[in-house]
Amino acid sequence: MEFSQQELERLNSNSLYKTVGILVDDAKDGKAHSCLRPNPAVCWPFEGQPHGGVLFTLMDTTMAWAVLTAVDREYNCATINLDIQYIRQAQGESFTCNAWIIHKGSQVIYTRAEIVDEKGQLVANGQGAFYVKKMPP
Amino acid sequence: MEFSQQELERLNSNSLYKTVGILVDDAKDGKAHSCLRPNPAVCWPFEGQPHGGVLFTLMDTTMAWAVLTAVDREYNCATINLDIQYIRQAQGESFTCNAWIIHKGSQVIYTRAEIVDEKGQLVANGQGAFYVKKMPP
Amino acid sequence: MEFSQQELERLNSNSLYKTVGILVDDAKDGKAHSCLRPNPAVCWPFEGQPHGGVLFTLMDTTMAWAVLTAVDREYNCATINLDIQYIRQAQGESFTCNAWIIHKGSQVIYTRAEIVDEKGQLVANGQGAFYVKKMPP
Amino acid sequence: MEFSQQELERLNSNSLYKTVGILVDDAKDGKAHSCLRPNPAVCWPFEGQPHGGVLFTLMDTTMAWAVLTAVDREYNCATINLDIQYIRQAQGESFTCNAWIIHKGSQVIYTRAEIVDEKGQLVANGQGAFYVKKMPP
Repeated sequence: MEFSQQELERLNSNSLYKTVGILVDDAKDGKAHSCLRPNPAVCWPFEGQPHGGVLFTLMDTTMAWAVLTAVDREYNCATINLDIQYIRQAQGESFTCNAWIIHKGSQVIYTRAEIVDEKGQLVANGQGAFYVKKMPP
Repeated sequence: MEFSQQELERLNSNSLYKTVGILVDDAKDGKAHSCLRPNPAVCWPFEGQPHGGVLFTLMDTTMAWAVLTAVDREYNCATINLDIQYIRQAQGESFTCNAWIIHKGSQVIYTRAEIVDEKGQLVANGQGAFYVKKMPP
Repeated sequence: MEFSQQELERLNSNSLYKTVGILVDDAKDGKAHSCLRPNPAVCWPFEGQPHGGVLFTLMDTTMAWAVLTAVDREYNCATINLDIQYIRQAQGESFTCNAWIIHKGSQVIYTRAEIVDEKGQLVANGQGAFYVKKMPP
Repeated sequence: MEFSQQELERLNSNSLYKTVGILVDDAKDGKAHSCLRPNPAVCWPFEGQPHGGVLFTLMDTTMAWAVLTAVDREYNCATINLDIQYIRQAQGESFTCNAWIIHKGSQVIYTRAEIVDEKGQLVANGQGAFYVKKMPP
């Protein structure tokens, strides 16, 4: 499944993304790409630095978009586990996340993701497993 | 280090906790306890269910409070990694998180945490490693 | 499914356990218990200390026994992921591992485990996710 | 620190590697490469397939070599945590592991690794954190 720009726009307008400052700008072929321009409210305890939970939220949701590109529209996905490493202090006004499927198994979809700052420096690194389930019509 | 109720009140008034709906209500002796009454804005994509990133934020920050109870006041802590498992859909109006230190080593502090719903059912389970560093005065 | 002492004896006689020094001595009701008396050959790079991979092998296999107690005999299980924390240097002649299911979902079984030394001190801590699949008859 | 072929030969002759079937064939510049030709004894419960703990041992030790290339000779390293994902059944006679440092921080060294089979297919994927400590002289 591929997401059109129109769909992405609609999906990006949700309250969570607005609150945190997330924008998913591409999702196709087992990959997704997103940006974080963190709202000052979620930059705590260090001013100007998004909380680790905000970086995690960015990573988890970007992985999920990558997963959804690999299944039919009537399926949704759920995170089984996600292990995140915090590499550097997250400094700057914007961050980007790349997430991709490393293997689509019959029962589990395995993903990886990286978040970098404006200088391209690695800020967080993660791997997660997802399962998919058919949504009730 | 132990946190007085007055300190906890001050710490709980930060913008991140207000935005998400987090309240840390106890932190001493290597343990911390917190509550999440998720703001509707962070309940997405399923109405009434906090996003996985919100549960992670609750867990990570509660672990950090547990860690801070074990070091002197001039130290801060940073998450090295945190692995979270999503056990059940997070349904209900409030959730509680217990986090505790399982070992304080010379270089790393190891923690665990659990998030349960109002029925006491396990919603998320995690383990994380932290390091501490002296803050500039 | 419960394992009789006779079955455990037969299962314990496999070449991997003999090589490493593993003995599973109980597996029922979503829990399993095992011992490691590490063969000197797998104690490297520190004499008398089993390698971290040996502790992992003990943990992973004990989790798997816990999982198998919760499914019918025609099913086998596979590890999706396992996150292990190394808490202390593993010193002494024997170690014990407790593993247990924290939740049996419809698609994934979540487990935890701890390895302690002869003094009861925590040596390794872990959490893992498994899926089960029907074996060909 | 770089390892000469002579040193690698000496290091590879340890009892753990012989028992399992591991050979580290390169370690320099923050990277390490190794091979596994699993001894039949550690292929259980499926004949011809190395146990997951064997793949983990290969990954952990290869990461450690990568870490050691980045520190002075009087330092040793210890695994803080390692999260491994099992992607595919491990089939075939040999496997290779690539491990590399993704960031060397002041207190923690972050690594990643992949294990592939003879066809180049991903069998296991992992990320781990290490700390280093000065060895007693």
